Amino acid sequence: MSVPIMSEHSAGYGSRGVQVHEARSEASNNEVRGTLGSSGHAAQGLDPAGPKVSRETSPVVIPEIPSNPADTPIARAAEAAVGVRGGGQPWPRPPRCRIMTIANQKGGVGKTTTAVNLAASLAQHGSRVLVLDLDPQGNASTALDVEHHVGVPSVYDVLVNDRPLAEVVRPAGEMPGLYCAPATIDLAGAEIELVPVVARELRLSRALKGYDTSNLDYVLVDCPPSLGLLTLNALVAAEEVLLPIQCEYYALEGVQQLLNTAELVRVNFNPGLHVSTVLLTMYDGRTRLASDVADDVRAHFGSSVLSTIIPRSVRVSEAPSRGQSVIAYDPASSGAIAYTQAAHELAMQSAGARQNG
Amino acid sequence: MSVPIMSEHSAGYGSRGVQVHEARSEASNNEVRGTLGSSGHAAQGLDPAGPKVSRETSPVVIPEIPSNPADTPIARAAEAAVGVRGGGQPWPRPPRCRIMTIANQKGGVGKTTTAVNLAASLAQHGSRVLVLDLDPQGNASTALDVEHHVGVPSVYDVLVNDRPLAEVVRPAGEMPGLYCAPATIDLAGAEIELVPVVARELRLSRALKGYDTSNLDYVLVDCPPSLGLLTLNALVAAEEVLLPIQCEYYALEGVQQLLNTAELVRVNFNPGLHVSTVLLTMYDGRTRLASDVADDVRAHFGSSVLSTIIPRSVRVSEAPSRGQSVIAYDPASSGAIAYTQAAHELAMQSAGARQNG
Repeated sequence: MSVPIMSEHSAGYGSRGVQVHEARSEASNNEVRGTLGSSGHAAQGLDPAGPKVSRETSPVVIPEIPSNPADTPIARAAEAAVGVRGGGQPWPRPPRCRIMTIANQKGGVGKTTTAVNLAASLAQHGSRVLVLDLDPQGNASTALDVEHHVGVPSVYDVLVNDRPLAEVVRPAGEMPGLYCAPATIDLAGAEIELVPVVARELRLSRALKGYDTSNLDYVLVDCPPSLGLLTLNALVAAEEVLLPIQCEYYALEGVQQLLNTAELVRVNFNPGLHVSTVLLTMYDGRTRLASDVADDVRAHFGSSVLSTIIPRSVRVSEAPSRGQSVIAYDPASSGAIAYTQAAHELAMQSAGARQNG
Repeated sequence: MSVPIMSEHSAGYGSRGVQVHEARSEASNNEVRGTLGSSGHAAQGLDPAGPKVSRETSPVVIPEIPSNPADTPIARAAEAAVGVRGGGQPWPRPPRCRIMTIANQKGGVGKTTTAVNLAASLAQHGSRVLVLDLDPQGNASTALDVEHHVGVPSVYDVLVNDRPLAEVVRPAGEMPGLYCAPATIDLAGAEIELVPVVARELRLSRALKGYDTSNLDYVLVDCPPSLGLLTLNALVAAEEVLLPIQCEYYALEGVQQLLNTAELVRVNFNPGLHVSTVLLTMYDGRTRLASDVADDVRAHFGSSVLSTIIPRSVRVSEAPSRGQSVIAYDPASSGAIAYTQAAHELAMQSAGARQNG
């Protein structure tokens, strides 16, 4: 290259508050090299000896919720607090952890906003929720106030370096019961680093199987706007797909491609996968178009479509998003109310599962 | 799947102005299926018989610019018009077409804005410029007023279906001399559809080699915020990398990873590849941080860094962007002036190459 490649030494901005972490550049280098040759490098690319990042972290232990929250004084206080904040009783919790992948390869349809706000609302009403940030831009991590700069143990380490998921999960700053596995920009390279890896589509699934979800009620996976290996991993790892669709022109563009991909994942890897939930977003009640799109999405997806529609008033600026949970920021806004209602519908699905299951 | 998969029939919104095109869903399906198995499907995935989309299109012929623009009445009029709009003489044109990849896996650093505004400014000053939109979200196509809904012949067809690039290039609505190869959302699936394809990193390079660039001065490739196969294709196809860096905290996060990737591409595929140009964006003159970052980027990249810095005032909202060329929209704005200056620096690099070459 004709430009100086920054050395580990010279690239540091420590004294000025700008951080450049490059500890993993050599590893990335090797892994990408494995990829660039041809497609025959199936066994290459990952170091089977384990993670290269040896930073010490103390796994976050997610406490159990007593089966009857009124049984203890602390739980009673918590319940009262939830009542004040959420305006009601704790919601039903699912019989076992629901792993939901929020996917749509179109950008700007509200994936991250949906992940963050549903999670915050469910946590506010007594559930334990993990948001797994699978988008290299890390906007969900930002919104949940979880550090995600290069060097922070992240989903990248889980997918590429076999790091246990428990070591990267962090409590979200916002409220108790809400957790986040952050994404760093390293993840942008994972799409290519994973290509030569054996069982490259199963990395996240295996990480989740090795993680104790018994005290969690929901894992919401926030996907990047792409149908690459990251989204494939999310589809293999989840039982449910939550599909946000914007009530706009060309809303369904790409939806068939996503459904085809999900069907292939179901047939090949994950027989339980299904699109359990469709959420209409960006609704502008003043336009006939929005209601036409909503009607047609309901005609296609039937009862999977939540009754609640997220209004356009919610700022859904995913990039260069400084996203925030509307639930915590402005609980009286129409966006917060809509996401709270949508989350309540999810919780009632869980109650149905509890009764039927 | 538990939801109805939309049929080609039922998904049409024709009568309401919403379009859903699904003609390619079957093809995508087959190609993804090839991918999901393992990495051993090197010969699969693409139909060697040629493009599956048989829609007729008339290739756009890019007219030659007379070597001395003052030689013809029309050229004199064009030169005068350029003078009026651009406030000066036509700029030097490079001795041969410069193919530049605008890459940074970080979102929101101004890749699309840079591609669109440099292209518009260069075209305004007498060059012929093609913007090749490689981001599935298609924001550069939107900004250049080129249709890019599913069904429009696009870069997806070029990469996946071997369609000649000439058949997808369209004149940008904005001004003469400006062209765009649009991206449709299909491209989101290309990251995975290309995995099992032979020479998957070389698809764009081959398409450009099969395209007559003799009447073009610049090809600017707008990459997605990822280091996947699309960005790899762009790096293999270009001679120059244009790297936008935002003057913000963590500006250089990921830059080393990008440089490593570019170096691997150089060694393995493309010996002429080099980072010719670094453009500082999002500069906020009121902060000390911005000038510190700018200083340090100059220390690392030396004379590759353009003197012009793009101020933060330019709206750099890449998604769900309704991007517009600032050059055409508000030529007196600070953003338009900055991009015009940056484009002039590029043109003067070309003049240097002409003298030296």
